[in-house]
Amino acid sequence: MILGAAGAAVLAFDVGGTDMKVGLIDAEGNVLGLRRVRTPRDPNRPADAILDRVAELARELGAEFPGHPARAAGVIVPGIVDPESGVGLYSANLGWRNYPFTAEAERRLGVPVAFDHDVRSAAAVEHHYGGSREFDDVVVMVVGTGIAAAVFSGGKAVSAGGFAGELGHAQVPDPDGGGTAILEAVGSAGAVAKRYAAHAGTPVSGAREVLERARAGEDLAARIWADAVDALAFSICQCVSIIGTEAVVIGGGLAEAGEELLEPLRQRVDQMLDFHRRPVILRAQLGQDAGLLGAAMNARALLAESPDADASAATDGAA
Amino acid sequence: MILGAAGAAVLAFDVGGTDMKVGLIDAEGNVLGLRRVRTPRDPNRPADAILDRVAELARELGAEFPGHPARAAGVIVPGIVDPESGVGLYSANLGWRNYPFTAEAERRLGVPVAFDHDVRSAAAVEHHYGGSREFDDVVVMVVGTGIAAAVFSGGKAVSAGGFAGELGHAQVPDPDGGGTAILEAVGSAGAVAKRYAAHAGTPVSGAREVLERARAGEDLAARIWADAVDALAFSICQCVSIIGTEAVVIGGGLAEAGEELLEPLRQRVDQMLDFHRRPVILRAQLGQDAGLLGAAMNARALLAESPDADASAATDGAA
Repeated sequence: MILGAAGAAVLAFDVGGTDMKVGLIDAEGNVLGLRRVRTPRDPNRPADAILDRVAELARELGAEFPGHPARAAGVIVPGIVDPESGVGLYSANLGWRNYPFTAEAERRLGVPVAFDHDVRSAAAVEHHYGGSREFDDVVVMVVGTGIAAAVFSGGKAVSAGGFAGELGHAQVPDPDGGGTAILEAVGSAGAVAKRYAAHAGTPVSGAREVLERARAGEDLAARIWADAVDALAFSICQCVSIIGTEAVVIGGGLAEAGEELLEPLRQRVDQMLDFHRRPVILRAQLGQDAGLLGAAMNARALLAESPDADASAATDGAA
Repeated sequence: MILGAAGAAVLAFDVGGTDMKVGLIDAEGNVLGLRRVRTPRDPNRPADAILDRVAELARELGAEFPGHPARAAGVIVPGIVDPESGVGLYSANLGWRNYPFTAEAERRLGVPVAFDHDVRSAAAVEHHYGGSREFDDVVVMVVGTGIAAAVFSGGKAVSAGGFAGELGHAQVPDPDGGGTAILEAVGSAGAVAKRYAAHAGTPVSGAREVLERARAGEDLAARIWADAVDALAFSICQCVSIIGTEAVVIGGGLAEAGEELLEPLRQRVDQMLDFHRRPVILRAQLGQDAGLLGAAMNARALLAESPDADASAATDGAA
C-alpha cells in the first residue's frame, strides 16, 4: 500500500465538483470502505451541505469498521485554498467564498482535520511516490476538463496562500485570434473537444475522439491537437523560465493519450526553450485515487506534526 | 549603512559585462575604496582573466586599508550560476562555460569566497531592505539593456540549480509578428530603444528618449512604450499564475521612468488577471550598488554559516 507502513487510521475525503471520494485508511495503509458519492449542491450553504454529508459518511465508516477508529481526517477541495488558515477562499464551481473548512470540519468530525487543495494534495502523493521523486523542482499538471497544477520548488510545495499553481488560468497565445487565451481554453481535454466541435460544426464525444480523428489523418483534428500541445508547451516553458522546473508530470484525462501527447510536447518544449535546461516530461503514475491518498497523507502528517493533539495517535507513530 | 552593524570585513566584487564594481566592506558595514574598473575580456580564458584582475584589486585594497583585513569575499557574476556547486555554468556575454569560480577565486584570494548570481544577490538585498520585505512571494526584475530576475517563494530565494529567474528569455506575445518573442526583446530598456529605431527608421538615444517622445504625443513612441508595458505585464501575470507572486519589484534603467512605467503596468496586470490576487508593483529602492552590497551580504552569510572556517571572523560575530 502506497501510504507506507504503520500510522494512525485516518479518514480521507476528496471533494470534487460532481463526486466525493471517501475512504478509511487503516493503520497499515489499506483503504477500507472506499466509496464514491454524489457531491451535494446547495447554493445557499454550499460548503455546509458538503461537510454535513462528510460527517454522515464518517459516521457510516465508523460503524462499518469499529476496529479502526480514525484519529484524524483529511479533507481536500478544489478552488483557491489556504491550508495554513484552513480557509477555502474561493470555488467558482462549488460556490463558496472564505469558508472556514478546518474549523467547521473539526466541529462536525471531532478529530483534527488536515484541509488542503485537491490537486496539490494528489500531486504531493504523485511527487512523493511517482516518477518525479528524484527532482526538487517539479510541476504536476492535471489536464482534464480544466487544468490544475501543483508546483514544487526546492523540494517543497509552493502554496503562496493558496494562489500558486493556477496554470489553467495563465495566458497562452490564442490559436484562434492571435491574441491570448487562458491555457485551460486551449490545452485541456475539455478545450480539445470544444474547439474541435466549434471548428467542425459538429459535436464530438471528447478529446479522445479528436485524437482518433487526428490519427486517421483528419487535418482539423490534428490542428486542434497540436494547438493543445503548443499551449501546454508554452506554459511549461514559462515554468522553466521562471522557476527552473526540472520535471513536469502530466495527469488527468488528456494524459491517457500517453506518448501521443508527451512526445510532441517534449519536442515543442525543446523548440521553445533557449539555453534553459530541458525538463523531463512524464506521465503521472497514480490514478484517480491520488487525491484520496493525498488527503490521507495530509491527515497523517498533521498527527505527526502535533503528536500532543492526540496522545494515542502519537503512540501509533506515523512515519 | 545598509549591511547593518558589526560583522567581518569582506571584499565584494560585482562582475558585469562592461565594468566590475569593487569594494571593501569594513566591520561596521562602510564601503571603503569603492571603485569601478573595466571588466577584462579574454576570449581564451575569460573567467581566469577576470579572477586574475579580482586578485589584483584585492591586493590593492588590502594595501590601501591595512587596518581592515578581509575575512571573506563575495563574487557575483551574470549568466547561469549554481552557487551550491560554485560553478558559473554559462555566460553568453562573458563567454565561460562550467567554470569553477568558488575554487579558483579562493585559490587566488586565500579567503573563503561566496560565489553567486549578480541579479539574485542584488535582489536579495533589495528584498531584505526594500519595499517588498513584508512579502514572502516576490519577483525582483532588473529591466535594463536586458532583463534578469530573482524569484522568492515562501520567503526563500528560488535557485533551481541556477536556472530560475530567466524571465528575460521567457516568451511573450510578439507585438510585431503575432507569434511570440522573448520578454527581453520587447520589454527591456534596450528593446524600447531598438524597436523604436527600427520602426521609425531613425536612431534614438535610449528608452528615456522614447518615453519623452511618447509624453510629447508621438504615436509610435507611445505604442512602443505600451508594448513594453504589455510584455512586462504578461510575464508578471505568468509569475502570479504559477507561483502566486504577491509583490513585484522593478529596478534597472527602465524603472527610472517611475510611475510612468509602474502605473500603466499595474493597470495591464489588473486587466490580464482573473480571480488571481493582484500583486503589489513597486520600484526598487536600492541603486546601482545593490549588487556590491549583495556580494558583501553573501560573504558575511558564508562566515556566519561556517564560523569554524575562520575563527577570528567568528569572534567578530556577523549578525
